[in-house]
Amino acid sequence: MKVNGKPTRSIWLADDGWAVEIIDQTKLPHAFEISRLETLDDAARAISDMLVRGAPLIGATAAYGLALAMRADPSTEHLERAGKILFATRPTAVNLRWALQDVGARLRALAPGERAAAAYARAAAICDEDVAINHAIGEHGLGLIRAVWDKAEKARTVNLLTHCNAGWLATVDWGTALSPIYLAHDAGIPVHVWVDETRPRNQGASLTAWELGQHGVPHTVIADNAGGHLMQHGKVDLCITGTDRTTARGDVCNKIGTYLKALAAHDNEVPFYVALPGPTIDWTIEDGVAEIPIEERDGRELSEVTGRTADGAIATVRITPEGSAAANFAFDVTPARLVTGLVTERGVCAASTEGLLSLYPERHNRPEVWAVVL
Amino acid sequence: MKVNGKPTRSIWLADDGWAVEIIDQTKLPHAFEISRLETLDDAARAISDMLVRGAPLIGATAAYGLALAMRADPSTEHLERAGKILFATRPTAVNLRWALQDVGARLRALAPGERAAAAYARAAAICDEDVAINHAIGEHGLGLIRAVWDKAEKARTVNLLTHCNAGWLATVDWGTALSPIYLAHDAGIPVHVWVDETRPRNQGASLTAWELGQHGVPHTVIADNAGGHLMQHGKVDLCITGTDRTTARGDVCNKIGTYLKALAAHDNEVPFYVALPGPTIDWTIEDGVAEIPIEERDGRELSEVTGRTADGAIATVRITPEGSAAANFAFDVTPARLVTGLVTERGVCAASTEGLLSLYPERHNRPEVWAVVL
Repeated sequence: MKVNGKPTRSIWLADDGWAVEIIDQTKLPHAFEISRLETLDDAARAISDMLVRGAPLIGATAAYGLALAMRADPSTEHLERAGKILFATRPTAVNLRWALQDVGARLRALAPGERAAAAYARAAAICDEDVAINHAIGEHGLGLIRAVWDKAEKARTVNLLTHCNAGWLATVDWGTALSPIYLAHDAGIPVHVWVDETRPRNQGASLTAWELGQHGVPHTVIADNAGGHLMQHGKVDLCITGTDRTTARGDVCNKIGTYLKALAAHDNEVPFYVALPGPTIDWTIEDGVAEIPIEERDGRELSEVTGRTADGAIATVRITPEGSAAANFAFDVTPARLVTGLVTERGVCAASTEGLLSLYPERHNRPEVWAVVL
Repeated sequence: MKVNGKPTRSIWLADDGWAVEIIDQTKLPHAFEISRLETLDDAARAISDMLVRGAPLIGATAAYGLALAMRADPSTEHLERAGKILFATRPTAVNLRWALQDVGARLRALAPGERAAAAYARAAAICDEDVAINHAIGEHGLGLIRAVWDKAEKARTVNLLTHCNAGWLATVDWGTALSPIYLAHDAGIPVHVWVDETRPRNQGASLTAWELGQHGVPHTVIADNAGGHLMQHGKVDLCITGTDRTTARGDVCNKIGTYLKALAAHDNEVPFYVALPGPTIDWTIEDGVAEIPIEERDGRELSEVTGRTADGAIATVRITPEGSAAANFAFDVTPARLVTGLVTERGVCAASTEGLLSLYPERHNRPEVWAVVL
């Protein structure tokens, strides 16, 4: 999507054709800085230090990390070492594992001299596939937004609400939950997005607000507490979020607080959609609340807030008293009963086993284990 | 309750017997500073600059403000002027209006020479009445906590969840929602409180965490997003919050986000209680969502966060991008159907017209208008 008016992806090849460039997302929203990755270690650091985040973008960065590694030394030994180093950066990231397995297997089958070029080609293809999947999600979700607009006789703005960042910054382009919103905006449908701040890491206030603003999409940042009130008063037409992991029956595990918004949507008959690429469906589990362990992160992500001071410096402030503990649960699970529909690259379906199998019939009677690392 | 081990109220007479001392709550949780009020203007500034906050404490401060004014000049002209100055500090605060009307009417009936002493006496009585009401709320709420503990065969800690600050800092002592918790703790029942951060003004992270910590009550600060997850996993036995305004049928208007917690409690069969002094019941309205206008405050309360830097300085940082709007709705309404019960100074009742009339039978067939300023 656009940054300073210029179409931009979250990862791309530098003009020299071999180095990889990314947006340093740790600097957003206060500075737009491009980071140049020249080595395996650069790529590993970009992932571990969260210059890149979001499952698809992490996968793409890992793929390019293997390409950079093969450019330096295409030996099988180095290939294995590179895979291990990259995997260790975020061992719970499913796309990271997938990308490393996919690219690694292809490279092992080749002679060392062919590996660098093949790795670059495969990394580029992974990026393009991600863009295509997200664009397809957007097209299907666009239909939902257009339906709201049509029902309002094209007479008013369509108000959407999203939580966390499931935008193009988390993918290679378009995003998942935000993809339909970008397509609607680009199609001339007047949209406005209520952006949940998304405590404790503020991905909404920082990343979602920034990318919507750069692309020119009207939006307003709100406290995570506000969505219920807005829905009670008819100020939200449709909620749409992403999901880190979707169970075979349609439970969704997404950023902490998603469940509360789904409850409010249900209580006020506001449609609540969840956008996802098919590969993030975990066909091996059913009951998300019972079966998905929730990561607990450092409490300082809650008790300390980082931002920009009036004089432009980046500073971190503590908001809780010394001596008060802070707990930081990263995700929660929204039961399928609260989800109006799942928006995938293949279409929109009910959040149910039947719904998912209607879009992914190849999974019928073939519930192969999709490796998940926890 | 205790501060540094010493029993403390939120407002008291100085040792000299005429000046008024308060805790400067704008400095919490990072510094405990006592502010001395010597004049009408000191009292007015303490309210308008939010050194004191919380409806009961604002009322008590206004009453003492009239006393300070009468000490300086007990003329009727000055009395009227003082009332106007104090009323203008927070014109939407119901207790402020009530205290000024109550004290003002008593003083007008007296000769100027008798006014100062009478004002001090009435201000002290207002404080003591508030303490008595809150202690009674605590006793009734204590029964609910004790019942949970008994049901658990006294074998484990009772986990409570609260939102915003309805503690002793918002009142003269004890608080409303926190009063039962203090009584339970003091009675030896092992309690632990999940403290909602309460964005955007962080009253939970700063004030509730501070006062619980000072009194020695175990607690953990969490993101407002986390409560649903905790309730899904059985980690909350009982929720209890305050309310700014309660309708005649039991809808409660409280800090933004209360509604989301009530939805989660309902979805997980966790009891959700709301504590309130009877005078905050607004007998003139029924449907809180439809009838209570919600204050919208400056978006900077959301986009800017103030806290303490590592070197001890107080700093404010912006967390949203320049150009992104922020909306700041201060309250929301939780419908009575989501409230397990109301905890008042007269007992616990159902959140319904029948429930409230059972405790306040004098309101039956006498729905006198209780003046509310919006």
